[in-house]
Amino acid sequence: MNAEKIAARLDAVHGKAPLVHCITNCVTVNDCANALLAVGASPIMSDEPDDVEDITSICDGLDLNIGTLNHRSIEAMGRAAARAAELGHAIVLDPVGAGASGLRTDTARTLLERFHPALVRGNMSEIKALAGASAKTRGVDVATADAVSDENLEASAALVRKLSQKWGSVVLVTGAIDIASDGQRTVAIRNGVALMGRITGAGCMLSALLPAFLAAGDDALLSGVAATCLMGTAGETARARLSGQDGTGSFRTYLIDALSTIDGASLAKTCRIEEL
Amino acid sequence: MNAEKIAARLDAVHGKAPLVHCITNCVTVNDCANALLAVGASPIMSDEPDDVEDITSICDGLDLNIGTLNHRSIEAMGRAAARAAELGHAIVLDPVGAGASGLRTDTARTLLERFHPALVRGNMSEIKALAGASAKTRGVDVATADAVSDENLEASAALVRKLSQKWGSVVLVTGAIDIASDGQRTVAIRNGVALMGRITGAGCMLSALLPAFLAAGDDALLSGVAATCLMGTAGETARARLSGQDGTGSFRTYLIDALSTIDGASLAKTCRIEEL
Amino acid sequence: MNAEKIAARLDAVHGKAPLVHCITNCVTVNDCANALLAVGASPIMSDEPDDVEDITSICDGLDLNIGTLNHRSIEAMGRAAARAAELGHAIVLDPVGAGASGLRTDTARTLLERFHPALVRGNMSEIKALAGASAKTRGVDVATADAVSDENLEASAALVRKLSQKWGSVVLVTGAIDIASDGQRTVAIRNGVALMGRITGAGCMLSALLPAFLAAGDDALLSGVAATCLMGTAGETARARLSGQDGTGSFRTYLIDALSTIDGASLAKTCRIEEL
Repeated sequence: MNAEKIAARLDAVHGKAPLVHCITNCVTVNDCANALLAVGASPIMSDEPDDVEDITSICDGLDLNIGTLNHRSIEAMGRAAARAAELGHAIVLDPVGAGASGLRTDTARTLLERFHPALVRGNMSEIKALAGASAKTRGVDVATADAVSDENLEASAALVRKLSQKWGSVVLVTGAIDIASDGQRTVAIRNGVALMGRITGAGCMLSALLPAFLAAGDDALLSGVAATCLMGTAGETARARLSGQDGTGSFRTYLIDALSTIDGASLAKTCRIEEL
Repeated sequence: MNAEKIAARLDAVHGKAPLVHCITNCVTVNDCANALLAVGASPIMSDEPDDVEDITSICDGLDLNIGTLNHRSIEAMGRAAARAAELGHAIVLDPVGAGASGLRTDTARTLLERFHPALVRGNMSEIKALAGASAKTRGVDVATADAVSDENLEASAALVRKLSQKWGSVVLVTGAIDIASDGQRTVAIRNGVALMGRITGAGCMLSALLPAFLAAGDDALLSGVAATCLMGTAGETARARLSGQDGTGSFRTYLIDALSTIDGASLAKTCRIEEL
Repeated sequence: MNAEKIAARLDAVHGKAPLVHCITNCVTVNDCANALLAVGASPIMSDEPDDVEDITSICDGLDLNIGTLNHRSIEAMGRAAARAAELGHAIVLDPVGAGASGLRTDTARTLLERFHPALVRGNMSEIKALAGASAKTRGVDVATADAVSDENLEASAALVRKLSQKWGSVVLVTGAIDIASDGQRTVAIRNGVALMGRITGAGCMLSALLPAFLAAGDDALLSGVAATCLMGTAGETARARLSGQDGTGSFRTYLIDALSTIDGASLAKTCRIEEL
């Protein structure tokens, strides 16, 4: 895991242009589509149970994001995931709001247990809720007590590694410091800016990008790290560009701009990773 | 009610960072989330009946917006509102398109009668439809005959005051001139620009902000007026920033920018209110 | 069909400000609303079967876009279209993803056969799938083999003309070169830029604008061509404005800006059409 490999993975996404089926929430669905298009991939959204098997069959990967879930979309996630698993497509699970409601926690756990996603991405509160801890979430935001920091980095990394081993999935916990593990290697990523939490969709966009990165090459951990470095770098680029009366509206536009313009060579210079 | 109190209410929102549950339409749901985040609050969207009671329980207020309603979201609104009422959370009702369809009018009236929202916000056509008048709406826009103007300001204010008394809710009618009343005090707000009607979401964003303002302090009328002054000022700020080839796309971005950068001190200088 | 007539049709949209009912996908619904508002028209979205008949009754046209369809929205499309047909409102069909799933292909064909839309707009893969060809789609994107080019322009135009005659609808195939036919006249439109495929919604926005253009005057082919020239010109204007760190996020904002600022006089200078 190094800058060169991260750069190559992004270039592979650009070259392969994977098609990603997203079953995602209505809040950030447009952002997810634009994020995928920004990196040269293509999105298809479909959450009708009678539509999803055909749709996922022509795709290269599947993003299951449980924000604004409903019984129809839950059924659709199950049917799409079953078909994607049959076809060997990478499945990403984003347990948005796990811990905030019984339905969300149960749905996320069921999807995890039935379909063994290639990668699970959430904030630390969501990941702990998924693991069965009685974590307190602040809705879709991380609880202060759960946030990864330099003080708890070692313990946090140990937990992520353990959950990765238990679930058989790459686990990616994003926050002020991001941690990713495939159960063997564990990596901290120090890209990104706090302002990403002042717009909706930064986490959802990353989750939507992940199946594209997973489809672009082997080593799921590398894919997860590369996508996280890209999203974090995009946030840094967007923040650096703010001037005058710019605020969170412009930041959001600049973030998509950055996703569409960063290439492997520039990502190699900005990515900040550390094996733990 | 004065500029100082309005400024203090905005600063209280920034300080308290309320969590707002929105059951809202799919058209502007992303704008509502970004507007709440822009003012330092947090949004959670959920419209699945089996999810909303848990979600609303961890929130500080509830926004019920009936644009793009369906039978599932109508059931979700009832269950969320019942729970929010039990917990004493402020409920805001936005009767989008009341008068434009029987289902919308009936749904808005049922929510009003069953849950006695702290605040009801709409354009004058929607508010008249809710009151049982055979108002003509132009879809989700105000009918020309209903628009509040200097000519009909006194009569409009009397109607808003009467409806507030009848419903036991603060009533906020937005348009070229905004009027808010808690049945005792009635205030005209003269912030805002016509260009806000050339993008979708200005009204929905205001409705989403209202539970955050209601959760930030007592005096629901003050909360309603402060949020309306903020949204109107944001519109003025955004319009003043337009230059060159900018149009409604940039205006929308600048509006969110302004929501994220205006603080109490600056709002105190721009708010234009008048007790009637 | 000439620049003067195209300009006059856009000016008529600005003057008449048609109200358009959209039953559309959740990915680009906000873009569709903002596109309609940008050209001075008004959008109403509603996809609840028990709401759509009332809503469409007060509108001037109906946009049926099957992206992210579900059984509820399919029923809503049928009920809205039946009412719109009774009232003589123009119906536009956008068969998003026809060919990508059985449900999408069947739904699009049923809507086409039952309601004889005034205009059908899609990429060539979708139009071929609708016509019963065993076209290969790339999800919601055109398959490379289907793309209209100078090499296959004559054959493509012949197909579009034949389908228009068969269906009794204006057929509008958009892509690198756009082709529109009413079965008698066939027109190629050479406005637009490739970057429009790097954001989501360019096609959906055009489809949402079409009922507004159809409601603004007779000659459905002229309406289709004028809207297509406008959208293409907006894309050209947006691309020409990109500078510095701008990417696809800014491009999307500039596209809406252009839709809101281009008038008939300027469109007359930029539209590039060719009768075939």
